[in-house]
Amino acid sequence: MHERRRKFWGWGWEGEGLTREELKLLDPVWAKRLGVSEFEITPPPAAEEISLRLPRIAIPSSLKEVCTIDHYERLAHCYGQSFPDSVRIFQRDFSNPPDVVALPRTEQDIVDIFDWCGSTGAAAIPYGGGSSVVGGVEPPRSEHYQATVTIDLRNLNRVIEIDPVSEAARIQAGTYGPALEAQLKPSGLTLRHFPQSFEFSTLGGWIATRSGGHFATLHTHIDELVESLRVVTPKGIIETRRLPGDGAGPSADRLFIGSEGIFGIITEAWMRLRKRPTFRAGTTVRFADFYKAADAVRVISQAGLYPANCRLLDAQEAAMAGAGDGRHALLVLAFESADHPLDAWMNRALEICGDHGGEWDRTALEKSGSHREGAAGAWRNAFLRACYLRENLTARGVLSDTFETAITWERFADFHSNVKDEVQRVISKVTGNRAWVTCRFTYIYPDGPAPYFTFVSMGNKENLLDQFYTVKRAASDALLKHGGTITHHHAVGRMHRPQYDRQRPELFAEALRAAKREFDPKWMLNPGVLIDH
Amino acid sequence: MHERRRKFWGWGWEGEGLTREELKLLDPVWAKRLGVSEFEITPPPAAEEISLRLPRIAIPSSLKEVCTIDHYERLAHCYGQSFPDSVRIFQRDFSNPPDVVALPRTEQDIVDIFDWCGSTGAAAIPYGGGSSVVGGVEPPRSEHYQATVTIDLRNLNRVIEIDPVSEAARIQAGTYGPALEAQLKPSGLTLRHFPQSFEFSTLGGWIATRSGGHFATLHTHIDELVESLRVVTPKGIIETRRLPGDGAGPSADRLFIGSEGIFGIITEAWMRLRKRPTFRAGTTVRFADFYKAADAVRVISQAGLYPANCRLLDAQEAAMAGAGDGRHALLVLAFESADHPLDAWMNRALEICGDHGGEWDRTALEKSGSHREGAAGAWRNAFLRACYLRENLTARGVLSDTFETAITWERFADFHSNVKDEVQRVISKVTGNRAWVTCRFTYIYPDGPAPYFTFVSMGNKENLLDQFYTVKRAASDALLKHGGTITHHHAVGRMHRPQYDRQRPELFAEALRAAKREFDPKWMLNPGVLIDH
Repeated sequence: MHERRRKFWGWGWEGEGLTREELKLLDPVWAKRLGVSEFEITPPPAAEEISLRLPRIAIPSSLKEVCTIDHYERLAHCYGQSFPDSVRIFQRDFSNPPDVVALPRTEQDIVDIFDWCGSTGAAAIPYGGGSSVVGGVEPPRSEHYQATVTIDLRNLNRVIEIDPVSEAARIQAGTYGPALEAQLKPSGLTLRHFPQSFEFSTLGGWIATRSGGHFATLHTHIDELVESLRVVTPKGIIETRRLPGDGAGPSADRLFIGSEGIFGIITEAWMRLRKRPTFRAGTTVRFADFYKAADAVRVISQAGLYPANCRLLDAQEAAMAGAGDGRHALLVLAFESADHPLDAWMNRALEICGDHGGEWDRTALEKSGSHREGAAGAWRNAFLRACYLRENLTARGVLSDTFETAITWERFADFHSNVKDEVQRVISKVTGNRAWVTCRFTYIYPDGPAPYFTFVSMGNKENLLDQFYTVKRAASDALLKHGGTITHHHAVGRMHRPQYDRQRPELFAEALRAAKREFDPKWMLNPGVLIDH
Repeated sequence: MHERRRKFWGWGWEGEGLTREELKLLDPVWAKRLGVSEFEITPPPAAEEISLRLPRIAIPSSLKEVCTIDHYERLAHCYGQSFPDSVRIFQRDFSNPPDVVALPRTEQDIVDIFDWCGSTGAAAIPYGGGSSVVGGVEPPRSEHYQATVTIDLRNLNRVIEIDPVSEAARIQAGTYGPALEAQLKPSGLTLRHFPQSFEFSTLGGWIATRSGGHFATLHTHIDELVESLRVVTPKGIIETRRLPGDGAGPSADRLFIGSEGIFGIITEAWMRLRKRPTFRAGTTVRFADFYKAADAVRVISQAGLYPANCRLLDAQEAAMAGAGDGRHALLVLAFESADHPLDAWMNRALEICGDHGGEWDRTALEKSGSHREGAAGAWRNAFLRACYLRENLTARGVLSDTFETAITWERFADFHSNVKDEVQRVISKVTGNRAWVTCRFTYIYPDGPAPYFTFVSMGNKENLLDQFYTVKRAASDALLKHGGTITHHHAVGRMHRPQYDRQRPELFAEALRAAKREFDPKWMLNPGVLIDH
């Protein structure tokens, strides 16, 4: 049997991508919208056409079984899944590959790989599913490192232990989303953390980047689901105690959650689970006015109702997903429970929507599988398939990306209109073409939403990277200038560094550097991410 | 008008304490239970009878307005509110007072005080309400420091700004609980963080010690209520961005939450508020079997119902509070909301209780003020008055204290019986008298409870401190040995150091020390707490 292989140039397994049906939305629908008669489509690269720099270090015999210089593995570990990654891939730019890809099977393997990296002066890049959209997994270009060893955790892929009483499980960090849920399934429990990258991202990656999951309220980030951690650092192993709640000093877990691999490699975690939901209430609510809809969402978020889903799409975002008429904002609202019917919860949430001019889909409300049908279903499908869109857009020279943030409610309306206007203006200036900037809420809190922006415009293949960076810088600066954060759940990586450096108190950066010197004195781990020497 | 003054030898304002009625429960009820015919009562010290060591440093003229060597102030800042603190107070042991008490009015005052401490080689002890039960605010005895300056934040006591839209407020760290709520009241908003020490503890103290508040589920620790922080360190000021949720690197706030004053002084915070509740449903549920009651609480905690109160008292704990018959465990159960009636929530929780053999008070359920009446009211009153009990117990030579922890559900039953047995055995051995060890849940999580133990036995005034430390060590070791944490919300301070040092990964301690060197290079702040040089 032939093993499935991930594409090295885009999303998913080799041979997978948008269907012919889905591609029709690009050619000709989007071509027309973007003002081109027909797209010029660059084919994806083939592995054979790329020649990689020769490895600059030789694998010692003791590590032969867990390290490789296989052409395809090195190709597949050059990039994450960001827009500029995709552009460089289609430009056949693989000029800075990892020299070696390590595939540890045990913690001791990781220790040995660190020792080797330390002795050869190599950088060590922790690698989960490689779904970073912020340059979080790429080899450094710094002269300081003799080589790069990318450490892919995919062989640490087991749910080791399930505690059905406390509803928790001990899980290896390299476990991909589907494998994780499949191993939990017989127990009736679920982590229920479904980032958009779910299929090709790992538990360790989620924790290292503070990923955002399924729940629009309460347990939004992976942070809250971590019960304890094991981390292998170049100086030794850290293991925190399994506890439902702790108050003994600053949280050790929280120093590693979001550390993006700079301190060590998370090898396993006890994660908080829950029973698979058996009750569900869901519908969509239409609003003529986006800001009144936002008010409704604010009141819901402050009411203590805790919907599982409460995603507000502005009119264009809804329309683009095939879930709206282009004139109404759409709220995708759902409650779920493994314990009780949700009528009281849903009824009160809809009452709040009604008070703000919302009109809901009564038919959907009465159906149990409604989240897979109608407007909610269209949105869900667009969300799940969006990962496959990127490679098709860059192949066509379309400038398109997303950026996301969080902001308190009292500043939201100004924030939203300013950010949208400024980004739209920059894109039009850069491309000379019409630009769309749309917005949705991915997560909501009592004190503010996490808005998520998508932009699209016809770019120019000759200087698509420059165009992108101009827009990205403007968007990132706008987020900061108007009070938001550079990222709510996409992480910092290398791409968000300039704004992160301004947003983060400088003395805290000093503390991170000081901690780094303790854990990773040779500064081998993921250089360039979060902090510099 | 004469300003009210805090007792320097116990809880509350001068002139306040247990009522004659309340004292009758001690004399003779508890005297009889503890096996003495009559207590020998040591009177509290008077300020005049104590002579303090002369201040070892002189206040510079530039700090005369914000520093004092007033006898009473120095007396009042010698100790926190722990059992050994109380014993030493009644023994008239004030041998290690702070040399100076500083009362800064601004952040610049704090900067100036740090500079002075740095130049004179003094230790600087941040002081909120002084309610530490773990030796968190006492002057160090180390030779390393030339003197001690205790920095009392009580003049930083204002709610500076309220954001009614996002339901948040910017609050100075020295604000005491009642003053904080009084300033919020006109807005209709509340922090609703009510630790037992509420009346005499401050926002900054709560944050620095990860205090536990009103809510038995979800927002248990103050941690979740912090939106952003300002911290003055000896190296400069750190201010984090006001955000409803963030994902940019490891959380800076989380490094200071629980830092117990070793990195700097928290001067203000944006805190997440909520509307004052207008709906309430509450009752008490009796269970013949404590472990079946614990099972019911576990199922409730995993059901996503999020009761505001869900405190389970074992039979003896309930009886001691005058809230039970000594044969039934008692669950104090309540839901509250500012948004919606709570019938669906309460009905489902009671259904779960019924499934586990619980019988609830139907009369209480129908009354709106039921939490102030009946068994729940008795418990509530005992809880609120408990702070005044300590000074009366130590005056009588009674060995009594509490200790608390958290543990996952699957280990709870064994944990509970082992800890209880081991502590009971040690107390009986130490005192030679009958010992009570009772337990309640203060907080519950889907993956485990936070059990809180209370013990009492007749001690011997001649060696009460030794008796205490023997029991405390045994209790703390038992918590650790059976898988719990040394503290869920009482903090580490100096008293929990031996167990904290074992529980905390050593490499994380190195990271804390490294961070400390960045923030406080002269190591002046609260030495002895959390980490050593």
